[in-house]
Amino acid sequence: MSLKKDIQAEIIHAVETVQQTNPMAGSVTNTVTINFVANAQLAVGGSAAMVYMPDEAQFLSQAGGAAYINMGTIEPVYEKTLPGMAETLHNSAKPWVLDPVAIGIGELRTRLLLAFKSCKPSIIRGNASEIIALAGLWGLDGGTKTSNVRGVDSQDTVSAAKDGAVALARWTGGAVAVSGKQDLVTNGSVVALCHGGSHFMEKITGSGCSLGGVMAVYATAAPAFIAALTGTAVYNLAGSRAAEKTDAPASFQVHFLDELYKAKPRDIAENPFDIEEI
Amino acid sequence: MSLKKDIQAEIIHAVETVQQTNPMAGSVTNTVTINFVANAQLAVGGSAAMVYMPDEAQFLSQAGGAAYINMGTIEPVYEKTLPGMAETLHNSAKPWVLDPVAIGIGELRTRLLLAFKSCKPSIIRGNASEIIALAGLWGLDGGTKTSNVRGVDSQDTVSAAKDGAVALARWTGGAVAVSGKQDLVTNGSVVALCHGGSHFMEKITGSGCSLGGVMAVYATAAPAFIAALTGTAVYNLAGSRAAEKTDAPASFQVHFLDELYKAKPRDIAENPFDIEEI
Amino acid sequence: MSLKKDIQAEIIHAVETVQQTNPMAGSVTNTVTINFVANAQLAVGGSAAMVYMPDEAQFLSQAGGAAYINMGTIEPVYEKTLPGMAETLHNSAKPWVLDPVAIGIGELRTRLLLAFKSCKPSIIRGNASEIIALAGLWGLDGGTKTSNVRGVDSQDTVSAAKDGAVALARWTGGAVAVSGKQDLVTNGSVVALCHGGSHFMEKITGSGCSLGGVMAVYATAAPAFIAALTGTAVYNLAGSRAAEKTDAPASFQVHFLDELYKAKPRDIAENPFDIEEI
Repeated sequence: MSLKKDIQAEIIHAVETVQQTNPMAGSVTNTVTINFVANAQLAVGGSAAMVYMPDEAQFLSQAGGAAYINMGTIEPVYEKTLPGMAETLHNSAKPWVLDPVAIGIGELRTRLLLAFKSCKPSIIRGNASEIIALAGLWGLDGGTKTSNVRGVDSQDTVSAAKDGAVALARWTGGAVAVSGKQDLVTNGSVVALCHGGSHFMEKITGSGCSLGGVMAVYATAAPAFIAALTGTAVYNLAGSRAAEKTDAPASFQVHFLDELYKAKPRDIAENPFDIEEI
Repeated sequence: MSLKKDIQAEIIHAVETVQQTNPMAGSVTNTVTINFVANAQLAVGGSAAMVYMPDEAQFLSQAGGAAYINMGTIEPVYEKTLPGMAETLHNSAKPWVLDPVAIGIGELRTRLLLAFKSCKPSIIRGNASEIIALAGLWGLDGGTKTSNVRGVDSQDTVSAAKDGAVALARWTGGAVAVSGKQDLVTNGSVVALCHGGSHFMEKITGSGCSLGGVMAVYATAAPAFIAALTGTAVYNLAGSRAAEKTDAPASFQVHFLDELYKAKPRDIAENPFDIEEI
Repeated sequence: MSLKKDIQAEIIHAVETVQQTNPMAGSVTNTVTINFVANAQLAVGGSAAMVYMPDEAQFLSQAGGAAYINMGTIEPVYEKTLPGMAETLHNSAKPWVLDPVAIGIGELRTRLLLAFKSCKPSIIRGNASEIIALAGLWGLDGGTKTSNVRGVDSQDTVSAAKDGAVALARWTGGAVAVSGKQDLVTNGSVVALCHGGSHFMEKITGSGCSLGGVMAVYATAAPAFIAALTGTAVYNLAGSRAAEKTDAPASFQVHFLDELYKAKPRDIAENPFDIEEI
């Protein structure tokens, strides 16, 4: 109970700090949902900047309060851009979020994700299959040798990814968020199960990608576990509220971004979640 | 009459199969409308995945039930990605949709489109000028040597593209869809003229590109001609319905995607079209 | 008074010409807001085409009535694409719009922006920090040696950029537009201060980028100063009207594009602005 209240106070602090300071979190992210990522970051009070070139990624890594790497649409230049960016972020102890979208597809994506192991992303966000596959790729408990990702969709349940998520969080010393019907966020010693959201979040592209970008914004103002939890909570809150206003996905997306913008710190902190120590 | 009823039954089957099986159709598509393509594919019940890298395109071609190649914004890596992708799709008899956007502009686009001739796309979708230009590029009847495409816009009428569409369909053994005020879909022996839609579809970018992606989704569940006809029908239906709800293009696009999602199999099959045997 | 009335008549002429002729303005623009740029260009009555490859940029520069270069997300191929495109535009006296987004970040962006000095863009549009930084990069009055750009955001006021804007306009012989709470447009001898808009324009990504694209559309039909002023006026008008209809950013963006489409020539010309001769 006391732990939960402490966490809620930290969530409120994170949300307020972001709304007051308009922090910048730069991204290298996929072209499919890049606009949604930027608008979600702006909606919660952050600032967005997206780049592809190696030196620009270095610049943003140092200029921003945190950064976001999303593996959605790999481009040739990523071979030069991403390893240096991740190393810079790690060496300067700058928080960064990794979304291992489509892990298992393509030689370069696999090579880059392997290289990120030593750069220890502060937050890893993915669906269940992606989290299990990343734990496997990094040789950690709870992972599998072969990826069970189908394109960008998960074939596993969130609870099946719990061991992999905990192992990843213990390796990085940060947090891991598994998105699904019920979301799981862990720092390796505590597991939060978060409720809310809407089935429409799977009927639009980018709810996961943009959540990663929003977590990066909160990571400028809070420790990894709180940042991941705050992002998850505001997404569940805005998703629930948006779903009450419509019965179809495109208008859902408009309402969802509007509700991200309107969400109050206390309402975000009070969005239902359960805490379990492990 | 009997032929039309048979076609309508096949359309209903295609729509229901997609809604029940959530099939994945991977794409290499342009950055302008890539988000619209993905959200349209999701709205009709499919799953989307977009890539640029050669080995990822190979992977998606084999993992998906169909694939989509849209030539909208050519990038340097396409020189390596697209020929191999098209060959893989052809060699494995996997259905694929080609949208020859902006045919006639640029040396690499022309070279790639020439190479696609032997890979015989299951469905070719374009506006009238694009279809005429592709027939011309491939040396078929109904084509012209010089492209009459202005940027991405058509300068020809749909009926002017009929001969080229029929010649292309006979060459590929698949289907060709010509988008316009009235849409033409042919398999080389039957021509369907499809009605509905809205003038707002020309006031938003990507109604054509996303239709190609939706046809790829239906091609996972139906022969090329039915897949092309189903995509055209659901676009005409959703376009008509969306236009009744607004008087401006951005809200039209939101309503349009919502109506794509809400469209029922029978309503799609009963959207007006005429059949003519040739 | 007479000058203002003359300008208003020219604005009406520009808007009507675009609505009647559907002119094409091709772009090389960033992936974050590329869809917004295209839809805004369509909404005001223009036609859009986006490319990356060098020969395609050359083609569009010659085929379109004007062109747009936005430096938002630099890609490796820009090294080959942009210098030739800018030279072609300059040598053929074709109007073009430059948006120096994120000036100061990255070696290639800086090198390209330096090369554009001799190609004299007809319209330069940016926020205050970008305009000051470009004047500085080009060694003109009112500029600073070091960029005060933070990612994509301005840290300076519009009035602080007045000297740099005037100096840039005098160098190019065209127009410069500084976007902010109050917008400044100058041709080097006259300064217009334009009113309206909404604070929501900073809460969505791409209001600046898409304004640059819209200015390129108007530049097909009017001199640079009038084109820049017309774009600014229709943005302020649509922004004010959209803000009356909603209290959150995503629905604001939908209303904004709808209002761009609905704006009448006279209303655009009568959107408040002040004229000052210098």
